[in-house]
Amino acid sequence: MLYIIGLGLGDERDITLKGLEAIQKSDKVYMEAYTSLLSFGLSSDGLSNLEKLYGKPIILADREMVEEKAGDILSEAQHSHVAFLVVGDPFGATTHSDLVVRAKTMGIEVNVVHNASVMNAIGICGLQLYHYGETVSIPFFTETWRPDSFYEKIQQNKNMGLHTLCLLDIRVKEPTLESLCRGRKDYEPPRYMTINTAIDQLLEISQARDEPAYTEDTECVGFARLGSEDQMIVAGKMKQLQLIDFGAPLHCLVITGKTHPLEEEMLDFYRCRT
Amino acid sequence: MLYIIGLGLGDERDITLKGLEAIQKSDKVYMEAYTSLLSFGLSSDGLSNLEKLYGKPIILADREMVEEKAGDILSEAQHSHVAFLVVGDPFGATTHSDLVVRAKTMGIEVNVVHNASVMNAIGICGLQLYHYGETVSIPFFTETWRPDSFYEKIQQNKNMGLHTLCLLDIRVKEPTLESLCRGRKDYEPPRYMTINTAIDQLLEISQARDEPAYTEDTECVGFARLGSEDQMIVAGKMKQLQLIDFGAPLHCLVITGKTHPLEEEMLDFYRCRT
Repeated sequence: MLYIIGLGLGDERDITLKGLEAIQKSDKVYMEAYTSLLSFGLSSDGLSNLEKLYGKPIILADREMVEEKAGDILSEAQHSHVAFLVVGDPFGATTHSDLVVRAKTMGIEVNVVHNASVMNAIGICGLQLYHYGETVSIPFFTETWRPDSFYEKIQQNKNMGLHTLCLLDIRVKEPTLESLCRGRKDYEPPRYMTINTAIDQLLEISQARDEPAYTEDTECVGFARLGSEDQMIVAGKMKQLQLIDFGAPLHCLVITGKTHPLEEEMLDFYRCRT
Repeated sequence: MLYIIGLGLGDERDITLKGLEAIQKSDKVYMEAYTSLLSFGLSSDGLSNLEKLYGKPIILADREMVEEKAGDILSEAQHSHVAFLVVGDPFGATTHSDLVVRAKTMGIEVNVVHNASVMNAIGICGLQLYHYGETVSIPFFTETWRPDSFYEKIQQNKNMGLHTLCLLDIRVKEPTLESLCRGRKDYEPPRYMTINTAIDQLLEISQARDEPAYTEDTECVGFARLGSEDQMIVAGKMKQLQLIDFGAPLHCLVITGKTHPLEEEMLDFYRCRT
């Protein structure tokens, strides 16, 4: 049996009772550590808090491990209970379809325990989830690679009056270019895109367009550490959010479309006063 | 303090540890019972299972109660801890913005505990949440009222290759027209739209259009009791799903847009074989 268990967004107490029971039934517990992270995943005692609460050792599974050792994980799941923990919901902002497809193909029973994901928790700002269009991802620009395919999607959403959730790039355990050239792997320090960087990049793209989908005066909502005790949510124009220090990751950004009066009433509680 | 606590989608064990702690700290516990319901909310012992697990009496709050007695609930929250339980996520498919706005305006601290919602749990079928457009709601047609505003939204999503989540109507505690005419309130039995009815209505609307956005051959995914132990997920053409008995509510339906090979691989596990 392979349990795929969502951990939610905040800390170890965001797990569901069902998830906790599944972990306690499991012979081995892996935690996905390459597409996202919990706020406590950033602190040095984050993992041990989880282990204390769950009463089990946890094996951190980074991208390489899951890609290269998925076979091992799955053969364990053929004859014992294996838990695979995922930040947020198992099929939220990132899917673990590949692992599920392989498991099911091998005849392994897969049991999913859902939880909150950034895709629904952003509802807290008052913008209704009904009124969102396609979600976009904003990758870090480099000197030579400045992809802008998100722009057309934001524009389409805007044209229909819809809000856009922008997920911001996370680079964890990326090999340096230099080390790859030398045929070995040294890793860059982890990088998490801030709302400030995202807005810089968004404005760089829109400034080159006629009748841009958004400008520095477009209303947005910035979220940092969504779902954590110290989450920060600020609504304001792009140029206002650009000046705010949102602190530690993870950040995400919503570009608002057409708003309803009740949406505005909720946003007012988060509005930037500068 | 007003705690707004998501219960998730399945049974009482889908609550998070954080949510359970908040309930246990609360002096009074209300449960929202008008926009959705848990699978166990349909069974006669559903509420008592919750009360047993939480160790507290729960007051069921239907629409009238929340609308008419919100003032009472909020004045309790001014000087004690009040928990307001919501199926799914507090800001998922339905928002409780109105209650939050009133509470915040009165200076009451509001603490939200997130959980899974239908908006992210549908990810389990393999269609990526990134690739969804605007969500639509399908209301029950009546003899005289056959609204079709959802059609244009599905078409826009289709044009962009995006999937569409269709939320299906729930009618709980609706006064009968007859009783309203007599100036009192008798209630109709609760009604939950099935996938079959939704498809009938969707096809009725599309058949009147040139180049319809979807036909009876369009690939869809039907979900019943999503997140419960006995959930049912079937992928197939509209005309295939129309013939399937999905059983007890709640149902929802996804109309697929353009799919990627990995999405197809996951869908294959759910595909209808008739």
